[in-house]
Amino acid sequence: MKVSQLLGERYKERAADIESQNLMTRGGYMKQVGNGIYSLLPPATRIQRKIERILREEMDRIDGQEVLFPVAMPASLWQSSGRWDSIGSELLRFKDRSGADMCLGMTHEEAAVHMANNIAGTYQKYPFMIYQIQTKFRDEPRARGGLIRVREFTMKDAYSFHTSQEDLQKYYERAYRAYERIYARAGIPEVMAVKSDSGMMGGKVSHEFMLLTDIGEDTIVLCPECGYRANMEAAECTVKNEPEASLKPLQTVFTGAAKTIEDVCLLLGSTPQKSCKAVVYQRNVDDSFVLIFTRGDVEVNETKLTNYLKTAVHPAADLESAHLTAGNIGPVQLMANATVLFDKSLQGATNLICGANREAYHFTGFTPGRDLPEETEYIDLGKARAGDECPQCHRHSIRVSRGIEVGNIFQLGRRYTEAMGMTYDDENGNRVNPIMGCYGIGVGRLMASVCEAKHDQYGPIWPITIAPWEVEICALRADNEEVKAAANELYERLSAKAETLLDDRAVSAGFMFSDADLFGCPVRVVISPKTLARGVVELSTRDKSVKEDVALADAPRRVQELIEELKAQVMEKVPETL
Amino acid sequence: MKVSQLLGERYKERAADIESQNLMTRGGYMKQVGNGIYSLLPPATRIQRKIERILREEMDRIDGQEVLFPVAMPASLWQSSGRWDSIGSELLRFKDRSGADMCLGMTHEEAAVHMANNIAGTYQKYPFMIYQIQTKFRDEPRARGGLIRVREFTMKDAYSFHTSQEDLQKYYERAYRAYERIYARAGIPEVMAVKSDSGMMGGKVSHEFMLLTDIGEDTIVLCPECGYRANMEAAECTVKNEPEASLKPLQTVFTGAAKTIEDVCLLLGSTPQKSCKAVVYQRNVDDSFVLIFTRGDVEVNETKLTNYLKTAVHPAADLESAHLTAGNIGPVQLMANATVLFDKSLQGATNLICGANREAYHFTGFTPGRDLPEETEYIDLGKARAGDECPQCHRHSIRVSRGIEVGNIFQLGRRYTEAMGMTYDDENGNRVNPIMGCYGIGVGRLMASVCEAKHDQYGPIWPITIAPWEVEICALRADNEEVKAAANELYERLSAKAETLLDDRAVSAGFMFSDADLFGCPVRVVISPKTLARGVVELSTRDKSVKEDVALADAPRRVQELIEELKAQVMEKVPETL
Repeated sequence: MKVSQLLGERYKERAADIESQNLMTRGGYMKQVGNGIYSLLPPATRIQRKIERILREEMDRIDGQEVLFPVAMPASLWQSSGRWDSIGSELLRFKDRSGADMCLGMTHEEAAVHMANNIAGTYQKYPFMIYQIQTKFRDEPRARGGLIRVREFTMKDAYSFHTSQEDLQKYYERAYRAYERIYARAGIPEVMAVKSDSGMMGGKVSHEFMLLTDIGEDTIVLCPECGYRANMEAAECTVKNEPEASLKPLQTVFTGAAKTIEDVCLLLGSTPQKSCKAVVYQRNVDDSFVLIFTRGDVEVNETKLTNYLKTAVHPAADLESAHLTAGNIGPVQLMANATVLFDKSLQGATNLICGANREAYHFTGFTPGRDLPEETEYIDLGKARAGDECPQCHRHSIRVSRGIEVGNIFQLGRRYTEAMGMTYDDENGNRVNPIMGCYGIGVGRLMASVCEAKHDQYGPIWPITIAPWEVEICALRADNEEVKAAANELYERLSAKAETLLDDRAVSAGFMFSDADLFGCPVRVVISPKTLARGVVELSTRDKSVKEDVALADAPRRVQELIEELKAQVMEKVPETL
Repeated sequence: MKVSQLLGERYKERAADIESQNLMTRGGYMKQVGNGIYSLLPPATRIQRKIERILREEMDRIDGQEVLFPVAMPASLWQSSGRWDSIGSELLRFKDRSGADMCLGMTHEEAAVHMANNIAGTYQKYPFMIYQIQTKFRDEPRARGGLIRVREFTMKDAYSFHTSQEDLQKYYERAYRAYERIYARAGIPEVMAVKSDSGMMGGKVSHEFMLLTDIGEDTIVLCPECGYRANMEAAECTVKNEPEASLKPLQTVFTGAAKTIEDVCLLLGSTPQKSCKAVVYQRNVDDSFVLIFTRGDVEVNETKLTNYLKTAVHPAADLESAHLTAGNIGPVQLMANATVLFDKSLQGATNLICGANREAYHFTGFTPGRDLPEETEYIDLGKARAGDECPQCHRHSIRVSRGIEVGNIFQLGRRYTEAMGMTYDDENGNRVNPIMGCYGIGVGRLMASVCEAKHDQYGPIWPITIAPWEVEICALRADNEEVKAAANELYERLSAKAETLLDDRAVSAGFMFSDADLFGCPVRVVISPKTLARGVVELSTRDKSVKEDVALADAPRRVQELIEELKAQVMEKVPETL
């Protein structure tokens, strides 16, 4: 491809805060069509096709069978799993010309079960995995970050079917490894799997694959020593209480208008850590109240709460109808019309401040182990915090980082096959629901994430495996006949062996190099009247690891060599298939 | 791939009237998800990917640049071209969560202009062509024929941009040739281009590529001698009138209750050919009347009428408000509140019967050239008929056939670039709208059309270039250890060189062969205890052109040879790129 013919323009003005969005907009990779909806120009489409190829190869390697599900689906399919009603407005619903309810697929569990239903009726057919690479639509309220969080996107989604949890577990590990290979092949082996909450997918075990970066939307809890990693939503809170020898008596104190933890602590000369905090929610289904007591310095992890309650909640609006005294709620002498839960952070705590359940009064000397009924259950509902003890090795402190989720894998269990009535005959002739796993990777988000991880201030530094072109020839003074002839000849020779871009425009060197930085091709060849006078071309890599002069005649061989070296560098970090 | 692991089941019961739909349903290629919406199972997905690859290669060959447009688009984009209002309910419109109007793309002219706008601002950037392979949705009122007419489909659509009509014409010819190559590579070189009406695309010159078959929805006019080909909607009507020496006078005759051409002819002892018929339409916009006179044996071609009027029409509902006497309408002494048009078939006609514009009376002896004003214009509004004179060679008779449209190419002109304000600076610095062409092929419809053209009563006979697998090994008595070992070894050896399917199931020969016929792999290898006893395997082709025994050890080489032969047979019919 010659740059003079390539559709797209590049420009200097900063286009967005997030670097991948900025560089890919400035570099002519994409153009916004609507809120969270983009067209991909030729360079991005080339990257996309290469990522799709990696995905296809790795899915085939773990015995995946490629299929194609529809983008638009009848409501009946989503009603059969119950998700038509349980998913919010991110599922885009509409009516077709006949008035029938339909939706745009945001995931395809229903479609996968629909396809496999009735054609996998005996245990001998299992396990199997089907996958597709297809457009999805998720009506995100807040699209952001260019291709990082869009509404329409291309996704590889895979669904496996099993006759036992053990078999799923075994396959899940193969898929996990395939994912590690995919990220490594795409040039970001640093992507890490973290345990995650399964959310609306309805399963139990799941992992998110995270690229750590400050612009990420997800929060990850890590132990740098033992390797513990979990999504904040799934991370255990390991707050510990130092036992105190002398227990003070429970005592009512006047605290007047002091309501917040901070104010009460200030007034009584205490700390949040030595307080017991009340947090009140209401169940979405019936607005019934849920009252959680945590240590004053621990926040409630709403995902854990939702999972524990098995229903969605929202912060309480009106405390009076639950007979609660805002700012003075405490676990002793409590007369509340609410489900009352105690967070683990209160276990073993002593001599705390807590509300006294009447206006202007608190207790001091509250010791849960003494003042609460013996059968009180302490549940892990707290948010993990940087510096807390690692829940895995119990020896080091955890760190909290931001990350972009570039993929996820779920053990779904029988959630969908049960709901949709998919069964097979087992060895004993019993009709049983198969167990499912599902495995997703967004193609555009992966592309943007690679750009996020691999760039400098001038442009993307595409890994050789997904770069739009492997090598770019910059013909400086392309209007010079000698340069033109040499560049064209080199272009012909290189094109036969590598994906080659030739900048054949009569533009200044600065202009051409700044465009080349935005194209981000791994290998660059510069030909100019000056280099030709010396009989050489200048060879360099976009990552600046190589910069050398090479005899013109030797350039194709050396370029090929460099490309192979760069490929080997990527492949070195790709683990074996399981 | 081993059949025991392949997802899908095949069955014997007839599944549909149309053969491709029947065979592809029975063969486990696809599963209906909703009205006109299908999931593709692994064999169809493999065919689809191969067709996509052919499309991509041929588009790249004519300098296409692959891009990706969105499936879901904001209304504003379609409003900017005017099509938001001009297209009916086949454009699926909906509102997103914020209440914004959106639609699902059924074609992408607007998206193509949006992408190219502002980044092709000077004449040096032209010509260029961008294409995508992406899901489309068209809310067809009558989905039918499996993948032939669906609502959701994968399409390759391409858009070229030019600075002159000559340049477009030149490119159009290259695209035309690329299309011929595509159909030939897909194994149906018999696809023919016919001149067509541009319909809602808004251009002038256009061609449809047709596969002739009785189940086609389109009607094509052909001259078997000179090669003239046109879609019925665009075909000229060449009805001729023999001049008569003696002209009879115009005379009123009583015809009583005879209203139809047939009844009046019966009564007066005449023929439709010697009659003048009135056909009445109303414009959709304002219900105003349009009255067309044709020769009694010629039907009105509504597409020609719409194009002439530049507005859509429907058959008239209420003739009285136009002051017309149903069954007695004629061109003489007419007092109608309507636009009156005369079809070419009346030119030169003599001594016709026609309505007298009063109840129970007709005229005889109507001779348009004498009885109508001299300035009367005769317009081609008639439907071409089998047996008419060829409008191109004027020597032979035309034939009328049915066909499936498997692709189309359009010269769009400036329709979209003008409406959407896309311009470039020409050599003289003037801002001009570029001229566009567009080029579409539906992937699923092409697949089904190949099946329609290439099958026998037992299943598809896939051309080697798009077959789901190139070769299938049928291991009869796969439970026999010797067969199993030989089949597995052959499978390993063949897989390294060709796309191989191994039927490793312990099923009867009849069952296995009937499945193999439905898979339609071009080459088949049968291994059984009997063939092994003779040290051979049975080799055959799905098209029955080859059937031979080959020594087991020699099988891989011979299979490879057969595959190459079959490929060469396909490629022989592929014309050179332009």
